[in-house]
Amino acid sequence: MTVKIGILGYGNLGKGIESEIKKNPDMELYGVFTRRDKSTVKASEGTKVYNISEAAEHKGNIDVMILCGGSATDLPEQTPEFAKLFNVVDSFDTHARIGEHFKNVDEAAKASGKAALISCGWDPGMFSLMRLYGSCVLPEGKDYTFWGKGISQGHSDAIRRIEGVVDARQYTIPVEAALEAAKSGEKPELTTRQKHTRECFVVVEEGADKKAIEEKIVTMPNYFSDYDTTVHFVTMEELKRDHSGMPHGGTVIRSGETGPSNEYKDVIEYSLKLDSNPYFTSSVLLAFARAVARLNKEGKSGAMTVFDIAPAYLSPLSGEELRHTML
Amino acid sequence: MTVKIGILGYGNLGKGIESEIKKNPDMELYGVFTRRDKSTVKASEGTKVYNISEAAEHKGNIDVMILCGGSATDLPEQTPEFAKLFNVVDSFDTHARIGEHFKNVDEAAKASGKAALISCGWDPGMFSLMRLYGSCVLPEGKDYTFWGKGISQGHSDAIRRIEGVVDARQYTIPVEAALEAAKSGEKPELTTRQKHTRECFVVVEEGADKKAIEEKIVTMPNYFSDYDTTVHFVTMEELKRDHSGMPHGGTVIRSGETGPSNEYKDVIEYSLKLDSNPYFTSSVLLAFARAVARLNKEGKSGAMTVFDIAPAYLSPLSGEELRHTML
Repeated sequence: MTVKIGILGYGNLGKGIESEIKKNPDMELYGVFTRRDKSTVKASEGTKVYNISEAAEHKGNIDVMILCGGSATDLPEQTPEFAKLFNVVDSFDTHARIGEHFKNVDEAAKASGKAALISCGWDPGMFSLMRLYGSCVLPEGKDYTFWGKGISQGHSDAIRRIEGVVDARQYTIPVEAALEAAKSGEKPELTTRQKHTRECFVVVEEGADKKAIEEKIVTMPNYFSDYDTTVHFVTMEELKRDHSGMPHGGTVIRSGETGPSNEYKDVIEYSLKLDSNPYFTSSVLLAFARAVARLNKEGKSGAMTVFDIAPAYLSPLSGEELRHTML
Repeated sequence: MTVKIGILGYGNLGKGIESEIKKNPDMELYGVFTRRDKSTVKASEGTKVYNISEAAEHKGNIDVMILCGGSATDLPEQTPEFAKLFNVVDSFDTHARIGEHFKNVDEAAKASGKAALISCGWDPGMFSLMRLYGSCVLPEGKDYTFWGKGISQGHSDAIRRIEGVVDARQYTIPVEAALEAAKSGEKPELTTRQKHTRECFVVVEEGADKKAIEEKIVTMPNYFSDYDTTVHFVTMEELKRDHSGMPHGGTVIRSGETGPSNEYKDVIEYSLKLDSNPYFTSSVLLAFARAVARLNKEGKSGAMTVFDIAPAYLSPLSGEELRHTML
């Protein structure tokens, strides 16, 4: 079975899908759907570009449409809308609104008989899976999630919105001592401040009040005020030269106990070190798109999350091959 | 739904199940089934003990029978036999015979309409899952599995079979430099000898030829000849004092690339540090037993592996609770 993939939105994630699809011999790129004037979109050679308004005409030709828009405004509208036409996968990550998003997508997908996977990627996604497996195989225990070292787009954007700031990159950095404490099996209580620091590289307008900008950053509620934050002012040239990558990663830890008197300590650790956040995320979305196509073929419809997908569905190998090579 | 668990075989694993079941509020121990004279089995207070020959009489009262026998001779017979009566979970780990075992169990379980999960635990089991997820989310890459530091029962037994040996414990130890190399993203080729060393603590009969015994250990094919092996002769008192625990663990690494020219390196690492191998294994088997009971209730029958089970089935929480707390 060849899985034909559509890409909706051609930003970092869309480009990642376009690239990583080639590493999956059972998959094929059907085309990119864009909101922009399609004549202005420079896709890779051989990639077909369509306008988003044409999508409905391609219903039936695409096995899974991967939605590469943002969680703030794109996906809450797009995922339910496109689930009426296609099996879909999104990477919706606004945690507080997942319940609502699931419900909207579920209604649309059940009505159309399509399968719709929401909140896929690495967090939510692979990290969510690890939290679930960890809590089930060690029912008495404590969870820790650390992020970084990596670029947080949300925090970078928050800095960019400050007057006088031209551009900025923010690194989220796990505190080594806190990571070690979490892995020790001692189940420490760790505060937000103890777990992560934030490091900002900021380009400002000529003559801007650096002291005031720094103060605005480190005291910004929700984003920085609960963290130890360092601000470095750099030139645009330095920012582009040293901070244009999109590395990320993190660690999920389950620290628990077994034994009649909980005398045995067990620590489970899952960590990711990624040179490129959007390319890895794309690769994860593709594996789950394969599963979504298959599940829909088996008659499954409605919204689902990574929790609802048996791992075998992610692989192009047969059950027998998987048992032989990976069990 | 309360999941009633039967335990077949009351060794380390059976005792682990009996203990860990108390950490799962939705589970209940139905009883232990033993091949021994049941009046000689000292189970914990409140645990009912039955003879294995009585098992059929309890059909219908037990949701899942967890088979705690060995892979060499017990499980190849017991799992197909008991799958005729019960949903079953086993920890069959003779890799070369998994295909055959799966087939035998599948036939029996399909005929009886029961669900039968084979080869569960941490390796095979959780490590298998990590190899599968890793290979799917990074299709171009290389796998590494390291074991230890931990006691290998098979290697300890192999030493005990040497004439003049009274008792022995063997530790499998991952080589730190090899682990670091595997995590580097450079995808090194690592030989068996480079990845692990073996350390043996051996009690011998009075007057035994230690030199000859050491030689027999380090040159033993399959078990030791491909490794750098260290042998320590100790007294029985020292062995009991310092080496009576059953710690284990290990690490699964997927090192892969993303990007149009594979320019981005990604490293996924999953590691376990376990104070007690049998208690952790028991805890894993119980989480999967919950899934097996549920899947069978939904009409699923036949043999399956951890690959075939959607993670949500492992948890006592509802889909909504999982999305809210773990996604």
